[in-house]
Amino acid sequence: MDGLLKTIESPEDLKKLDIEQLKELAVELREFILKSVSQTGGHLASSLGVVELTIALHYVFDFKKDKLLWDVGHQCYAHKIIAGRKNVFSSLRQADGISGFPNPEESEYDQFTVGHAGTSIPTAIGMALAQQQQKKNDKIVALIGDASIVNGTSFEALNNLGLVKRQLLIILNDNSMAIDPTVGSVAKYLSKARLSQTYEDLRKTTKNILKHMPLIGKSVEETIERIKKGIRMVLPTSRLFESLNIPYFGPVDGHDIPSLIQLFEGLNHLDRPAILHIYTKKGKGFSPAENDRPRFHSTGPFEIDGETVITSSSRKKFTDVFEEHLVELAEKDKKIIAITSAMCEGTGLGSFRRAFPDRFYDVGIAESTAVDVAAGLAKGGLKPVVCIYSTFLQRSFDQIAQEVSLQNLPVVFCIDRAGLVGPDGPTHHGMMDIGFLRMMPNMVLTAPSNETELKSALEFALTENKPVCIRYPKDFISENNKESPGCSAAFKLAESVTLKSYPDSQIAIVNYGSLLHEARQAQTKLAEEGINVDLINARFAAPIDENIISILSDGMAIITVEDHYLSCGFGSAFLEKVASAFPAGIPRPIITIGAPRKFIKHNSRNAQLMEAGVNADKIVQAARSIDSQKNK
Amino acid sequence: MDGLLKTIESPEDLKKLDIEQLKELAVELREFILKSVSQTGGHLASSLGVVELTIALHYVFDFKKDKLLWDVGHQCYAHKIIAGRKNVFSSLRQADGISGFPNPEESEYDQFTVGHAGTSIPTAIGMALAQQQQKKNDKIVALIGDASIVNGTSFEALNNLGLVKRQLLIILNDNSMAIDPTVGSVAKYLSKARLSQTYEDLRKTTKNILKHMPLIGKSVEETIERIKKGIRMVLPTSRLFESLNIPYFGPVDGHDIPSLIQLFEGLNHLDRPAILHIYTKKGKGFSPAENDRPRFHSTGPFEIDGETVITSSSRKKFTDVFEEHLVELAEKDKKIIAITSAMCEGTGLGSFRRAFPDRFYDVGIAESTAVDVAAGLAKGGLKPVVCIYSTFLQRSFDQIAQEVSLQNLPVVFCIDRAGLVGPDGPTHHGMMDIGFLRMMPNMVLTAPSNETELKSALEFALTENKPVCIRYPKDFISENNKESPGCSAAFKLAESVTLKSYPDSQIAIVNYGSLLHEARQAQTKLAEEGINVDLINARFAAPIDENIISILSDGMAIITVEDHYLSCGFGSAFLEKVASAFPAGIPRPIITIGAPRKFIKHNSRNAQLMEAGVNADKIVQAARSIDSQKNK
Repeated sequence: MDGLLKTIESPEDLKKLDIEQLKELAVELREFILKSVSQTGGHLASSLGVVELTIALHYVFDFKKDKLLWDVGHQCYAHKIIAGRKNVFSSLRQADGISGFPNPEESEYDQFTVGHAGTSIPTAIGMALAQQQQKKNDKIVALIGDASIVNGTSFEALNNLGLVKRQLLIILNDNSMAIDPTVGSVAKYLSKARLSQTYEDLRKTTKNILKHMPLIGKSVEETIERIKKGIRMVLPTSRLFESLNIPYFGPVDGHDIPSLIQLFEGLNHLDRPAILHIYTKKGKGFSPAENDRPRFHSTGPFEIDGETVITSSSRKKFTDVFEEHLVELAEKDKKIIAITSAMCEGTGLGSFRRAFPDRFYDVGIAESTAVDVAAGLAKGGLKPVVCIYSTFLQRSFDQIAQEVSLQNLPVVFCIDRAGLVGPDGPTHHGMMDIGFLRMMPNMVLTAPSNETELKSALEFALTENKPVCIRYPKDFISENNKESPGCSAAFKLAESVTLKSYPDSQIAIVNYGSLLHEARQAQTKLAEEGINVDLINARFAAPIDENIISILSDGMAIITVEDHYLSCGFGSAFLEKVASAFPAGIPRPIITIGAPRKFIKHNSRNAQLMEAGVNADKIVQAARSIDSQKNK
Repeated sequence: MDGLLKTIESPEDLKKLDIEQLKELAVELREFILKSVSQTGGHLASSLGVVELTIALHYVFDFKKDKLLWDVGHQCYAHKIIAGRKNVFSSLRQADGISGFPNPEESEYDQFTVGHAGTSIPTAIGMALAQQQQKKNDKIVALIGDASIVNGTSFEALNNLGLVKRQLLIILNDNSMAIDPTVGSVAKYLSKARLSQTYEDLRKTTKNILKHMPLIGKSVEETIERIKKGIRMVLPTSRLFESLNIPYFGPVDGHDIPSLIQLFEGLNHLDRPAILHIYTKKGKGFSPAENDRPRFHSTGPFEIDGETVITSSSRKKFTDVFEEHLVELAEKDKKIIAITSAMCEGTGLGSFRRAFPDRFYDVGIAESTAVDVAAGLAKGGLKPVVCIYSTFLQRSFDQIAQEVSLQNLPVVFCIDRAGLVGPDGPTHHGMMDIGFLRMMPNMVLTAPSNETELKSALEFALTENKPVCIRYPKDFISENNKESPGCSAAFKLAESVTLKSYPDSQIAIVNYGSLLHEARQAQTKLAEEGINVDLINARFAAPIDENIISILSDGMAIITVEDHYLSCGFGSAFLEKVASAFPAGIPRPIITIGAPRKFIKHNSRNAQLMEAGVNADKIVQAARSIDSQKNK
C-alpha cells in the first residue's frame, strides 16, 4: 500500500487532505478494496459504488459523535477502511477477522450490526428522537439504497418522519440494483428519471441546489421552495417524497466528491429531515463488476489479472438441486408459480425464470408481500413456491401465520440458507425458522438431507394441499449424504426413515435435515468402538413421526441432531411430543444436539458448526455417555 | 325486523331493489347493526361507516365469483348481514356464533379470515395474478382503510401493482381513524385534503370522473389522462399514487349510493388496477359513536335508549395496572419513552400520553417501525417501552431479532393481549410470543401473575439494561391471584418464587404468568384430596430459574402451566432445560399444560381456556395421575 491511503488511520487523517487528494484517495481505496476482496471474497460491487460518497461523508461529518446508519450494510467497506480497520481489512469475513457488515463491537464509528433491508430510516428516527429528547445536536445520517427504500419498513418510517423536528439526512443511494435489478413502480420511476438525465443535468441540479442552499437567516421553507422551483419537474421521484411532505434534493452525481462535500455542508444547516438523492454505479471502477453486478454482489475470491474469475466448485449445492428439479416439475405442472423477494439467483430460481418468465414473480425486497401474493395465488387455485432465505423469512412471520396457516393454504416455502451461513455471520444465520414455523397450526415442516430427499420433499410439498416448509442450508451436499438406500423412499407426511438399525442397539440418532453426514460419521465411529446405534432420518419436524417417539418405550435412548437453535428447534419439538406421550415419566435419556442461544460470528460454515457443537464428535460423546450408564 | 331488510336473504335479493329502496335499506341496516351490537358488543363504528359502500358493492358485483377482500375486516358487518348471515347476526362473536371478521368457513362470500392490517392489497394481487394465469375474468376488489394503507405491507404491494395486467379495484375507505386518529404524513395529507373539501366538491369530482369514465373503444390511457386533468390539483393524495403510476380516482362521497354504483360500473371496464378514494364517517348514524370513535371502535354491550352506555366492571385489568404504574415510574425517570403502533388506549398508554405528550410516540399501524424507532431510542441512551398486542408484535419479529436482540439494546416490550383473547378469536390470539421471542439471544422473557408482580416486573425491566419482554393477557386480574405473600418479592433475573411448599410433596406446579389462580385452585383442591403439591411461580421463561430444574433430582415431578401454545412455550423451554441438565435420563415425570396447536374460535376467554385444556381441572388430573403411580 502506497500513496495517500498509507496515511489514513482514522477519519481525522482524511480531513487533512485537499479535494484533489480526496479524489486520488478514492482511486487508491477502490484498488485496495478490489485487491483485498479478490483474496477474501465479499460484497464487492456495492462497496465499489460508494467510495466517493463515503469519503465525502467522513470529510464533512464527525462520526465519532455524529451517527451514520447503513441499510443492509454490505456496502460499508470503504467506511471500515477509513474508520480504523485498514490494517485488518484482509481479515474481512474470516475467522477472528472483521465482519462484512457494520458492527459496533468493532468500532465506535459503527452504530448497528445490520444486514437486513429497511432498517436505517426507522432506527435513524429513533436516534434523532433520542437527540431531540436530550437536547443534543449530533448529526444523524441514514444511507439507503434504492432497493431498500421500497421495503415496507422504509415507507412506514418515511410516513413517520414528521416526528423528527431536527436535522436528519437521508441519502438515497440509487444504483438501480438490489442483488438483482430492482423491481416495482418506485424502481421504474427512479430508472425512468435516471435514463432521462445526462451528466450535465446532474451538474445543473447540483449547482441549483447549492445556489439556494440554506443560509443563516433564511427560512428553511423559503429555501426548500426555491430549490423545488429550480428542480421542479426534472424528476418525478420528487413527487413521491413531496407527497409525504419530505424535503427532497437531487438527483446529483454520487461520484463527484467536491459537490457532495458542498451539499453535505449545506444540508447540515437544515433543522428538519431531508432526502438527498444521488446516483452511483454499482461495481464502479472494476469492469467485470460493472457489467455483471449480480455476480459481484457477493463473491468468493477471484483473480484480477485479465479479469479472469475463478469458477466455483462443481460439487452440487442444495440450491442447485432445487433449481433443477423445480423446473422439471413445473414443466409437467402448469399450476406451479415461483415467487421471490429480490433473491432470484440466490435461491436458485434463475432457471425457472428463464424457462417460465410468465410464472415467475419477484416483488423486490418485500418479504411480507411475497407471502401474501403467494397466499392469493394459492387461494386462486395455483401452487405458489415461495423462495426466501431463512433469515429474511422472519419478515414474513405474521403473513405466514395469518394469510397462510390460518387459511390452511397450499403454499410451499423453500427456505434456503437455513442454519448457519458462514461468512455473512449473525445477521444472516437462519437459526429460528423451525421454531417460528412449527407453532403455526396446519404447517408441515420438512428438511431433506440430500439430493434424492430434496427432490422427493419438493414433490411431496406440491401435492400435499397444505402449507409445507422445506429447509436446507447454503452448503454443498456432502458426498456422504448420498449413499444411503433408505433415503430413496418417497416423502410421506410424518414418516421418518430408518437408515441403519441393529437388533441390539439401545441408542438411536435422530437426524433432522442437512447434517446427515455428521450423524452417519458418528454412527460409523461408534460402531467401530463397539457401540451399535441406529440412525433415523426424521424428515419432518411438524408433525413428528409417532414411530420415533414409540421406540423410547422399547428401551432406546435418543440423540437428536439439527442445524438450528436448541430453543424451539426439532429437538425441542421432539421433547414436547415425548413429554405428552409419557406423562408417567420419560423412560430413556434424550440428548438434543443443536446450537446454543447465542450469536455465532462470521467464519466458515464448518467452523461455525464446530463452534456450535453440532457435529459428529458431539454425537459420539453423547452416545458414549449414554452407553457408559448401562455398564454402571 | 321489518321493511326491506326482511326480504334480503342474499345479495341476489338486494339486486332486485331500486336506488331509493337501497337508500332505505341503508337506514334499516344501520339500525339493525346498532341494535344487534348493543346486545353482543363488537366493532360498531367502522361497520356503521361502510353501510352504503357495502350495499353499492353487492349491487354491482357478484361476490359469489368476484372476490371482495377486506383489510383488518372488522367493518364487515353489513356485508355479513347481506351475504346470508342476517338470521345468525345476533350470535356475533358468541360461542358457536359467527365471527367478528370475514371468514370463508362461514360463507362463500368471504375469502380470507383476516384481522391484521395491510393484507388486502397483496392478497388481492395474488388473486388477480391467479385469474391472469388462468385467463379468468372474475373481478377483484380490495377494500382498505386510511389507517391500513400506511402499513408497510400495503406500500410494498402498491409498489408491485404493476405485476397485475387486468382489473383490480382498490377502494381506499378514508375515515381518518384507526382505533385512534390516524397519524403520519399520509394521514396529514389525507386530512388536509378532506378539510379543504365541501360536499359540493365531492359531487363535482364524482361527476367529472363519471363523465370521463372508460367506454368501449376509448383507450384507458386517454380516459385516465382526461380524468386526471379534470381533478388535478384538487387533491394532493393523487400525487402519491400517481408517483407510483397507479390510476387514481376520487375523492368521492362514500355514503352516496347512486354515485358509488355508477362509479363501480364504470371502473369495472378498466383493464388495469386502479384506486378509488372515498370519504366515509366512522360511526355514521349513531351520534355517540360519531363523537367518541375510539370508545365505539370495539365495544361491549351498551344501551341505546338515551344513548347511555353501560360502564364496564370496576375490577382491575392487567392493562390498568400497567397504565397506572408506567406513569408513576415515568414521573421519576425522565428517560422512559413510550411507543405504540395505533394502540394507545388499548395498551393503556392513554394516561402516559396525557401526562407526557412529548415522550409518547404513536407511529400508526406500523409495528416494524415502532420497534426500530425504539431500538434507535435505546441506542441513544433512553428507555423505550414498546406497547403492542402479542398478535401484532408478530409483525416485528425480524426487527426485534436484528435491531434489538442482536444489539442487546434495553428495549422493554409490554405485550398486552398475550394468550387467548376471547371474542376477537383466531386472528387476535397471542399464542406464539413466548416461542418467537425466547429463541433470540439476550432476550429476557417474564410474565407477572398479579398487580404486585406486574409492577415489579416493569421496575425490573426498566433497570435491567437488556431487552425484556413482559406478557399479560386481556383479562381482569383474578382476586385469587392477589392474596399471595410470596408474590411481593421483587423481580430478579431468572428467579422464581415458591408460593407454597410442603415437606412431603413430590409434585410441584410451575406456573408461568396470568393463570396463577387456576394453579392455586388446583393446589387447594389437591390438598383437600390429601395430595400435597408445591406451587412455584416461574416468573421467567428466558432464562428459566435453575432451581426449578434442580428439584427434579430431589424427586419432584413437575406440572407446568401457561396460556400459550405448548409448541415452543414455557413448558417447552422447561423441557429443553431439563433435557440438557439430565443427559443420563430425566428423573421424574413432567406434564406440560398449555394450548394445543390449533385455532381456538371466538368465545369468552374463559371458555377458550377450558377448550384449550388450560385450567385447574386439568392440573388436578395431571397431579392425580402422577400421584397414583407412587402407589403402584
